[in-house]
Amino acid sequence: MEFGTAEYQERIRKTKAKMTEKGIEVLLITDPANMNYLSGYDAWSFYVHQMLVIIDDEDQPLWIGRAQDANGAKLTTWLFHENIFPYPDDYVQSTTKHPMDYVAEILEQIGQEKRSIGVEMENYYFTAKCYERLQKGLPNSTFKDASLLVNWVRLIKSDKEIKMMKRAAKIAELSMMKGIELIDVGIRECDVAAEIFHTQIKGTNEFGGDYPAIVPLLPSGERTSTPHLTWTDDTYETGDIVTLELAGCYKRYHSPLARTVSIGKPAEKVQTLSDIVVEGLNNCLSMIKPGIACEEIEETFRKTIAKIGATKESRLGYAMGLNYPPDWGEHTASIRKGDKTILQPNMTFHLIPGIWLDQYGFEASESIVITENGCETLASLPRELFIKDGFVKIIS
Amino acid sequence: MEFGTAEYQERIRKTKAKMTEKGIEVLLITDPANMNYLSGYDAWSFYVHQMLVIIDDEDQPLWIGRAQDANGAKLTTWLFHENIFPYPDDYVQSTTKHPMDYVAEILEQIGQEKRSIGVEMENYYFTAKCYERLQKGLPNSTFKDASLLVNWVRLIKSDKEIKMMKRAAKIAELSMMKGIELIDVGIRECDVAAEIFHTQIKGTNEFGGDYPAIVPLLPSGERTSTPHLTWTDDTYETGDIVTLELAGCYKRYHSPLARTVSIGKPAEKVQTLSDIVVEGLNNCLSMIKPGIACEEIEETFRKTIAKIGATKESRLGYAMGLNYPPDWGEHTASIRKGDKTILQPNMTFHLIPGIWLDQYGFEASESIVITENGCETLASLPRELFIKDGFVKIIS
Repeated sequence: MEFGTAEYQERIRKTKAKMTEKGIEVLLITDPANMNYLSGYDAWSFYVHQMLVIIDDEDQPLWIGRAQDANGAKLTTWLFHENIFPYPDDYVQSTTKHPMDYVAEILEQIGQEKRSIGVEMENYYFTAKCYERLQKGLPNSTFKDASLLVNWVRLIKSDKEIKMMKRAAKIAELSMMKGIELIDVGIRECDVAAEIFHTQIKGTNEFGGDYPAIVPLLPSGERTSTPHLTWTDDTYETGDIVTLELAGCYKRYHSPLARTVSIGKPAEKVQTLSDIVVEGLNNCLSMIKPGIACEEIEETFRKTIAKIGATKESRLGYAMGLNYPPDWGEHTASIRKGDKTILQPNMTFHLIPGIWLDQYGFEASESIVITENGCETLASLPRELFIKDGFVKIIS
Repeated sequence: MEFGTAEYQERIRKTKAKMTEKGIEVLLITDPANMNYLSGYDAWSFYVHQMLVIIDDEDQPLWIGRAQDANGAKLTTWLFHENIFPYPDDYVQSTTKHPMDYVAEILEQIGQEKRSIGVEMENYYFTAKCYERLQKGLPNSTFKDASLLVNWVRLIKSDKEIKMMKRAAKIAELSMMKGIELIDVGIRECDVAAEIFHTQIKGTNEFGGDYPAIVPLLPSGERTSTPHLTWTDDTYETGDIVTLELAGCYKRYHSPLARTVSIGKPAEKVQTLSDIVVEGLNNCLSMIKPGIACEEIEETFRKTIAKIGATKESRLGYAMGLNYPPDWGEHTASIRKGDKTILQPNMTFHLIPGIWLDQYGFEASESIVITENGCETLASLPRELFIKDGFVKIIS
């Protein structure tokens, strides 16, 4: 458990306040990051159904999950063991039984079957089938959409969480430097990715790394026209652009970072794009402070890059922190037109002004924490297009 | 694209045959493994909504996804570019718009709005909200549950797929050997995990590795009482048991493998458990052949371990191959009581007879392919409890 029981209880208190606002009496948490946030639960068991149940008038949540994972819940959470409810293995990926049938039975047994139940409708780990089976199993319950309810509680971090994200940022810095150092003519993409992974997981001598919610993304050449391709076992060639997006992760807290490498002198258009994106990013970092709205950041960036006629259709950033695959983003505030979320101290964002054109792309990003007077980047690494000489190395 | 267009078309043909059987005219594929299987699409973009649409009387699927990922679809699939439908970025994680609204509009535009539509109800990437929005957007459609429809097509691999899984197995072997070599007194768990990741991604000099759908799982000590805990930055101690489950992955095809290490002479009860589990695994490998049912394998294992009074409640294995996070299992056939699936050549399973008791656990597994006359393990590594001497090393 990474936080004291008092911090978990405070999170539960904030969650219950939001439940009350929305008229939710029983909240079913299936997002693994939300489960971890409220209970400490940490395991790669989210590929089977599991949940945390928050009941408005109960002090502790219930954990419901697969029998073989129950010892994991005992080892990683602050819950009393009698609050851990394991379901038998024949519920796993069965064509006849579904774990939500078990959940419905438990809720009925503990007298919660006629209440107003909140479910995370828009979460990877709450499938359409989950909802169908729960509704069938609990015909006297009222269901409400509780998507992102806990995610919004997560938006403002505690000082302890910020400290953990700074450790993650240290790992991100080291991993990015390793990638930039290794990318060169004749090197295989997978070998660069392997060294990045190694750095991410090893961490530092003081603290080890955890697995980021997204693998390193490092498309090269024409593949930089899109941000989410992973590596191949091809070798880099002179003239390649490589966009590198990765995160450091410390005890499930993330700090993402993106940079771009040019192997050999970049084409003028690439350097121009790089310069204006970095200028835009710097302008944003200068103006970010508590009290402004997310959309104002986007406006600053948009106006900067308009100077050379560039545009960016996709959002400029998003809240992030604690997470599990497949995403380190929190799915709450986005830095884009129309997002009126007001910045407050200890909110954390990944500001990623990537631009992907049809033949190439450019990315440079920072993870930031909102401070009392402005913002601070979590990592510290030059913001520029990194240029390798691009000469073929002769191995002596 | 890893396979020729002919292989993708054959997969589409088989999928359409199953659609006809189930009365489905339009199939919406949201499982990233199924998307890859039918189109070649490969990117870490599944954290936003995306899908492949298979229409019974159209030759090619449609790809619908986020605008910035459309170039990725052009680069990695066999689809004509006019079949790629990008949705604007303001649909991403929005509180007002949902990508399924866009999907509904597209289906209406192309005259598919009054048809029988299959959806993957039990898939991580088809949330309860997705289904709600699709039903709202397509009030004249009939929806059918098409969960696992394509997964069942994937059950029998082509020879080319088996070759790829053998490459994955080579990587699994190397990664496992690296882990076993490094686990020792005073070494941090994260440093072992880092080297395993490095080996998984580097692959061999001939071919690089891809990211497995699950990170290496390597609980130690009391944490071996449950299988899905990841590493810490603590150091190993004499007397620790470490269970190691990992996969090699080659171009999204997996070959998982599990082994157990004892640091120092194991307690007699651990050695006894190890011996009987390995005997059970060996007995299963000897009897597996085409024509028998999955449940017969479980029976063989159960009878073997009953000799020492041991039992195993969880399933013994499952079909696996092509996949994306969070799971490498195919969610179709399971090796357990009641599963009547009949083995056929070129089916592939992960046979993992792990046993987790309250204080410790033991795992030894094999990935296998069913052959004409029996089965073959994909990797080749001794099946035993690996014992390190457990002496504290003096660094000179």
